[in-house]
Amino acid sequence: MPDQATETEGPQINRGLQGVYFERSQVCDIDGKEGNLWYRGYSIHDLATRSTFEETAFLLIYGELPNATELELFTAQLKTERKLPDNIYKIIESIKDAHPMDVLRTAVSALSATDPEVTDNTPEANIRKTLRLTSQVPMIVAAQAQMRNDNPIIAPDESLDHAANFLYMMTGEIPSPESAKLMDTDLILHAEHGTNASSFTARVVAGTDANLHASIVAAISALSGPAHGGAAENVMQMAIDIGEPENAADYVKNLRKNRQPVMGFGHRVYRAEDPRARHMREGVRQLSEEMGQPKWYQILQSVVDAMAPYSRLGVNVNVDFYAGVVYYLHGIPEDFFVPIFSVGRTPGWCVQVIEQFENNILLRPLTVYTGPEPREYKQITER
Amino acid sequence: MPDQATETEGPQINRGLQGVYFERSQVCDIDGKEGNLWYRGYSIHDLATRSTFEETAFLLIYGELPNATELELFTAQLKTERKLPDNIYKIIESIKDAHPMDVLRTAVSALSATDPEVTDNTPEANIRKTLRLTSQVPMIVAAQAQMRNDNPIIAPDESLDHAANFLYMMTGEIPSPESAKLMDTDLILHAEHGTNASSFTARVVAGTDANLHASIVAAISALSGPAHGGAAENVMQMAIDIGEPENAADYVKNLRKNRQPVMGFGHRVYRAEDPRARHMREGVRQLSEEMGQPKWYQILQSVVDAMAPYSRLGVNVNVDFYAGVVYYLHGIPEDFFVPIFSVGRTPGWCVQVIEQFENNILLRPLTVYTGPEPREYKQITER
Repeated sequence: MPDQATETEGPQINRGLQGVYFERSQVCDIDGKEGNLWYRGYSIHDLATRSTFEETAFLLIYGELPNATELELFTAQLKTERKLPDNIYKIIESIKDAHPMDVLRTAVSALSATDPEVTDNTPEANIRKTLRLTSQVPMIVAAQAQMRNDNPIIAPDESLDHAANFLYMMTGEIPSPESAKLMDTDLILHAEHGTNASSFTARVVAGTDANLHASIVAAISALSGPAHGGAAENVMQMAIDIGEPENAADYVKNLRKNRQPVMGFGHRVYRAEDPRARHMREGVRQLSEEMGQPKWYQILQSVVDAMAPYSRLGVNVNVDFYAGVVYYLHGIPEDFFVPIFSVGRTPGWCVQVIEQFENNILLRPLTVYTGPEPREYKQITER
Repeated sequence: MPDQATETEGPQINRGLQGVYFERSQVCDIDGKEGNLWYRGYSIHDLATRSTFEETAFLLIYGELPNATELELFTAQLKTERKLPDNIYKIIESIKDAHPMDVLRTAVSALSATDPEVTDNTPEANIRKTLRLTSQVPMIVAAQAQMRNDNPIIAPDESLDHAANFLYMMTGEIPSPESAKLMDTDLILHAEHGTNASSFTARVVAGTDANLHASIVAAISALSGPAHGGAAENVMQMAIDIGEPENAADYVKNLRKNRQPVMGFGHRVYRAEDPRARHMREGVRQLSEEMGQPKWYQILQSVVDAMAPYSRLGVNVNVDFYAGVVYYLHGIPEDFFVPIFSVGRTPGWCVQVIEQFENNILLRPLTVYTGPEPREYKQITER
C-alpha cells in the first residue's frame, strides 16, 4: 500500500494546512507580521473610521467603492431585500430554543427552497443572492431573538441603515447614533478576513459546484465552532468571571499557570496586534461610559495589561476581545454573539464563493493512511 | 505587502489542494494507481460481496468487524433510532418541493435543535449521534419522496434491514432479496472514501470545534455539488439521452469532439478503474434483466466500450456510473440520487469527524493576494 506513513518516513503532512497556499484572491490582503489588513486595497483603518457597512459591502462585492448614486441604489436594494418568506418564520419558531447558530444555519439552508435563483451560479445571480442574504441573515437572527422570548417580531425600519436596523430588530430600541456607528464599525471589521475556516469551508463547498446557499450554510457551520467564531462569547464570560478590574491580574496569572488560553488573545495569522482590535477598543471605552458601566472596559484593559509580557511572543488581542462587550452592553444574550459575526461576514463569504466559481476546482487534499494493514475478511461465525 | 504574487514569483500555489497531505487517518486507504480501496484494512471487494451495510458501518465506527452479538445489538440500535421529531416532518413538508439535497441539509441542520447531545463532542456521544444520523438520514430522504407526491409517509418496517427498509420507505414496496442486496452493496460502496470534498468539508468544520451536526450539514452541502455527488444523476440523464445501445458510440464521439466530459468517467484519485464500479456493474446487469429492461445495462456497456481508448489515459468508470440506473429501475426520481449517496456516506462522514476531534486543529490555509495595491480612501463626494 502506498502512503503508509510512520513518524520518520512518508509524505510531508501539512497539519491544519498551515502555510499552504491553495488559491489566488483579489479580495483581502492580510499582513500578519505587521498587523495590517486591506479589503480590495483599502486599509481596514480607513474603512473602519470613514466608511459604512453598506459602502464596505459594496466594495467587497463589486471591487470598487461606490459613488453617491451607486451607494444610494445599493442601500435601497438592501432595504428591499429585508423580508423573509413565511415558512422561514415557522421554521425558526419550531426550533427557537436551539443555539442561534443552529437556527441561523437551518433557516439559511431553508431559504434555498424559495430563492428564485438558487441553482443559478452565474456571477450576476450570485450577486443578487448576496444582497438578499446580507439582508436576510440579520432578520433571521433578530427573529429568533424575539421569538424565544415570546415577543412579537420587530419589522425592519426603512429609515435605518443596516447596522442600526439590526440593533433595532434585536433590542426593540432605536440605537443612539454612537451605538449605531459602533455596530456599523463592528460589522465592517467582521465583513471579510481571507480564507479563515468559514470562508475556506464555503470555498470547498463551492469547489463542488454546489449553490451559493449550500456554501453559506457550510460557512455558518464552520463559524459556529468555538475555535473560530466563539471568542467574543468566551471573552464576555471571562469578563463576567473576573468581575472587577483589580481581579484581572490574578485571573490571568492563574490561567497561564494552568496553561489555559486567555480568551480573545492570539490568532492564526496575526503575530502583531489584530488591526481590527483598536477600533473596537475605543468603541467599547465610549459605550461602556455612555451606558454607565465603565468597569467592563476597565476589566478588559486590565487583562491586556496582565497579558503584556506575552505580547512580544506574538500573543495579542484579536477583534473578538472587544466585540462581546459591545453586544453585552446592548443587552444581547451571549449565544447571539457568533450570529452577529455572521451578520458582518455574510458579504465576505459570498464574495469568496463568487471568486471561487470564477476559476473553480474541486478542493480535495489527502490523508496519510496509518490504519491496519490489509487483513483477511472472516465470516461472522469465526470472529 | 507580502505574498504579492505574479505568475513568475511568490509562494507555490497548490490549486485544489491536489497532492497535499493535511492529516493522518486510520479509516480508509485508497490506492488510486492500482484501483484498490480498503476500509479499516478490509478490501472493498470483500466488504461488497460478503458484508452488509450494518456490518460495514460497525467496522467504520468501531474499527473492527462485529461478532454476532455485537452486530445484533448494533442492528437493533439502528432500528430504535428510526424516528424523527414532529418538527422535522413539518419542516420537510414546508419545503418539500425544493431539491432533496436542500431539504436533507435543512432537516439534518434542524435535528440539532432536538438532539439531546448536540453540544457533547466526546467520542461516546458522537458515536451515539452517528447511529442516530445513520437512521435519520434515510427517513428524511424517504419522507420528502412521499410528501412531495402528497402520499402518506411510510413508517419504517422493523423486520427489514437498513437498505431494504430504505427502499421500502422510498417506494412503498418491499424489495426482492436481490434488489435489497444490491441497494445494500450500493450503500457499502458509498460508506466511506477518504477525504473527498464532503468528508474534507466535515473535517474543516470539525476543526473549529463545531458540533457533529454542523459538520454533517456542511458535508451534505459539499455533496450537493454536481462535481462531487452529481455523477449518478448525470449518467442516468445521459443514458436516457442515448436511448438505445447502438447510439452510444456516436454519442460519446460527439461529446469528445466537443471536448465535453462523459458522465461517470474519471475520478480525482483513481487512474485505474474505480474498484467499486465492478460490484455495481454486475448488479445493474442482473437488476435490469430482472426488471425486464436490459437495455439500460446495454447502453452503459456500449458507453464503456466507446470510452475504451481513453482508459489507458486514466479515464475510467467510477462507482456512480452504474449507481444511477439501479435507482432509476426502482422508480426513484433522479434528484434523489445524491441523497441516496448521503444515506450511504453518513457513517463515513461521522467517523472522519470523530477522528478529526481526536487530534484537532483549525484548518486554515492561505490565498495569495493578487488584488489592487494599497490605495487611498477618497470621500464619496470625490469619487
